[in-house]
Amino acid sequence: MKTAVFPGSFDPITLGHESIVRRALPLFDHIIVAIGVNQDKAGYFPLGKRLEWIKAVFSDCPSVSVESYNGLTVDFCKKMNASHLIRGLRTSADFEFERSVAHVNSRLSQSVETVFLLTQPEYVMITSSIVREVHKYGGDISQFIPRSIRID
Amino acid sequence: MKTAVFPGSFDPITLGHESIVRRALPLFDHIIVAIGVNQDKAGYFPLGKRLEWIKAVFSDCPSVSVESYNGLTVDFCKKMNASHLIRGLRTSADFEFERSVAHVNSRLSQSVETVFLLTQPEYVMITSSIVREVHKYGGDISQFIPRSIRID
Amino acid sequence: MKTAVFPGSFDPITLGHESIVRRALPLFDHIIVAIGVNQDKAGYFPLGKRLEWIKAVFSDCPSVSVESYNGLTVDFCKKMNASHLIRGLRTSADFEFERSVAHVNSRLSQSVETVFLLTQPEYVMITSSIVREVHKYGGDISQFIPRSIRID
Amino acid sequence: MKTAVFPGSFDPITLGHESIVRRALPLFDHIIVAIGVNQDKAGYFPLGKRLEWIKAVFSDCPSVSVESYNGLTVDFCKKMNASHLIRGLRTSADFEFERSVAHVNSRLSQSVETVFLLTQPEYVMITSSIVREVHKYGGDISQFIPRSIRID
Amino acid sequence: MKTAVFPGSFDPITLGHESIVRRALPLFDHIIVAIGVNQDKAGYFPLGKRLEWIKAVFSDCPSVSVESYNGLTVDFCKKMNASHLIRGLRTSADFEFERSVAHVNSRLSQSVETVFLLTQPEYVMITSSIVREVHKYGGDISQFIPRSIRID
Amino acid sequence: MKTAVFPGSFDPITLGHESIVRRALPLFDHIIVAIGVNQDKAGYFPLGKRLEWIKAVFSDCPSVSVESYNGLTVDFCKKMNASHLIRGLRTSADFEFERSVAHVNSRLSQSVETVFLLTQPEYVMITSSIVREVHKYGGDISQFIPRSIRID
Repeated sequence: MKTAVFPGSFDPITLGHESIVRRALPLFDHIIVAIGVNQDKAGYFPLGKRLEWIKAVFSDCPSVSVESYNGLTVDFCKKMNASHLIRGLRTSADFEFERSVAHVNSRLSQSVETVFLLTQPEYVMITSSIVREVHKYGGDISQFIPRSIRID
Repeated sequence: MKTAVFPGSFDPITLGHESIVRRALPLFDHIIVAIGVNQDKAGYFPLGKRLEWIKAVFSDCPSVSVESYNGLTVDFCKKMNASHLIRGLRTSADFEFERSVAHVNSRLSQSVETVFLLTQPEYVMITSSIVREVHKYGGDISQFIPRSIRID
Repeated sequence: MKTAVFPGSFDPITLGHESIVRRALPLFDHIIVAIGVNQDKAGYFPLGKRLEWIKAVFSDCPSVSVESYNGLTVDFCKKMNASHLIRGLRTSADFEFERSVAHVNSRLSQSVETVFLLTQPEYVMITSSIVREVHKYGGDISQFIPRSIRID
Repeated sequence: MKTAVFPGSFDPITLGHESIVRRALPLFDHIIVAIGVNQDKAGYFPLGKRLEWIKAVFSDCPSVSVESYNGLTVDFCKKMNASHLIRGLRTSADFEFERSVAHVNSRLSQSVETVFLLTQPEYVMITSSIVREVHKYGGDISQFIPRSIRID
Repeated sequence: MKTAVFPGSFDPITLGHESIVRRALPLFDHIIVAIGVNQDKAGYFPLGKRLEWIKAVFSDCPSVSVESYNGLTVDFCKKMNASHLIRGLRTSADFEFERSVAHVNSRLSQSVETVFLLTQPEYVMITSSIVREVHKYGGDISQFIPRSIRID
Repeated sequence: MKTAVFPGSFDPITLGHESIVRRALPLFDHIIVAIGVNQDKAGYFPLGKRLEWIKAVFSDCPSVSVESYNGLTVDFCKKMNASHLIRGLRTSADFEFERSVAHVNSRLSQSVETVFLLTQPEYVMITSSIVREVHKYGGDISQFIPRSIRID
């Protein structure tokens, strides 16, 4: 069984995240959308809510599950027997950072390979951080998040 | 009347900011230099001082006014009947971020268009953040800020 | 009268180009879409065709005209009494090049200022060069060019 | 059966290319390394040699085959029933170009998805173009190409 | 005597830092590895430890000394009669930031020139920030730091 | 004796090149400005002229000499007993390319180290290629080239 982890803070999950997972489905038998918990910093939205939203978004995908984890991403992969990490690439600024992280991960665990998919053009501007900013100032975020969930 | 908003934190205003506004003058009837107030984070310089400095810098420009605002930039534009946002571009790292913000703004309000001018070569290295750093450690910032103001 | 030049090779004009001009309309009284003729290199499509297509695309815009020119872009601007150049920005790779060109132009003629608009997200991947490549190999380019023209 | 195409000019194949294909093996049942033939420009090395070298490099991989093709990459994918394109990413400059090409390909054929793997750190500096340059001036290219082949 | 300062937070020193200093040795008579102390933010590792580690790493290099400093880097250079700053470049994202800092430094003190060396390919992914992250979550950082020191 | 090579096509030498060499003088006993001759492509300006201009620019610098060379840059370095290459960095787009070349050079010859200096802000927009373009169309290039030479 080929298992992949899609790690992130998903604070909150966006249309971009949803699209990456759906397009990765044909490549893997099991995809774990995994919220990395930062012990020093609470999220903007509560962890429970974030998990719940992801579950709702992929309720139609039996091969997708949702988890949270503490510690290093590669340790979580080992625990879950995952051979691959999935990451989305939006911009070249993203790319430099993602490359460093992926290369460090492959140093920490040679058995984990990172696979990248592109964010679709219409979602390139959407980051969780910008969505939080819009939400904080009372703007309408419904066009940036999956249609199957509602965030007030 | 064609009104544009030049949003920022201007903490403090730099020679780069001044140059952008002066070169944008021929494009608009009215330019509002607008300090976005972050409710969670005080500035390095007090808001009152920042507003005062900007007013002093453009005291010779009747078509420039200065404001502060809370909330989303696009909501402030609507309130002021502004059709355009003005932004300066320094580097390609700037560009990626500015593009995301501009595209989100055009999603939130299709009636607002962002116009970019280039920072002049001799000002490309000047950011408010570097100016604050130099100021904090007692360095001379006079060569980075408009000649018409003095910051001790 | 505020005149701007939108220079390029337009070989061929794309949906991205069209969108830039239409969004620049409110900023200028007159926009000249200007094909720079490279004396050493013929285009992929004949100059006559390229001019004709641009005219067709903007036939509904009385303030847009179409020209071709030899020589330096800033000299063409002077001849046309244009105070501004318009350029679209797609990616950060674009940006570095555009910045060099704009700064050289402002050195050659201080009276010409370059104004940048962003290519819309759904057109970021479209360049004339990729369109030519698709056309050369018999692909369908109709989704990359303005709806009002047809290129066989 | 899940088939992927790894397109390129492979002029010549490098250690970077080899590594990408080997790391993509677990993701697909069949990988076609495919040399796109540019009808207007001969390669530096003859097409026959390039095909031969790739075959030798992957002689131990039954799920890898080698082909050349004319025309659009997405048309070749359709012909081969390939659902995915594989591309390696070296640098952020690469990224911008690869993103445009991938987005155009997904416009031309929604059934083809591009999957990216990272070039390993020690191969990031190796491009076919630099290898050709070294070869042209009589330098030793053996450390840049797969160990199983020899290019004089 | 030609003296250079290699400034940083070295929190902790990495294999990348060590390599930069060793390769800079032939260019200068004296290299000062200098920890800039941020008055507002304690480091992850204590300053004393960081100084000690650097001393251990370069115990075989009589022309390398280690210092900490408060205030502006250019002021520290003046105090130490240093004519050059040394910086390592990893990625293009690094580059934009380093360029701004170097240009501001040369504005603050025209007698200080910044010299850049490249991080070696196998160390490009290593940043102090990623090393801290791995350490915080209990990962093994020994492959990212100089062989002559041990960090528990 | 510490010798460095500053390689390029210098077609023609610009103010940016001149500034790099002058700022590198304190680092080396001997700097060789070296024109790499591409056997397949003639320059825009004749090689003899290019050599002559460089000589004129550095006629006041006894430690600078001028040469042309065929073949690989690292082979030329060995022949001249040069331990270092000097390169100027303008933009992050430059950087990616320069990094690949420097890393390939250090693979071809571990005894050659590349040292980078920054192009000064006011010269960042100047490339030989843009200077040739301006010259070709009859523009005034005098503000882009060293004051001590004249190119008609």
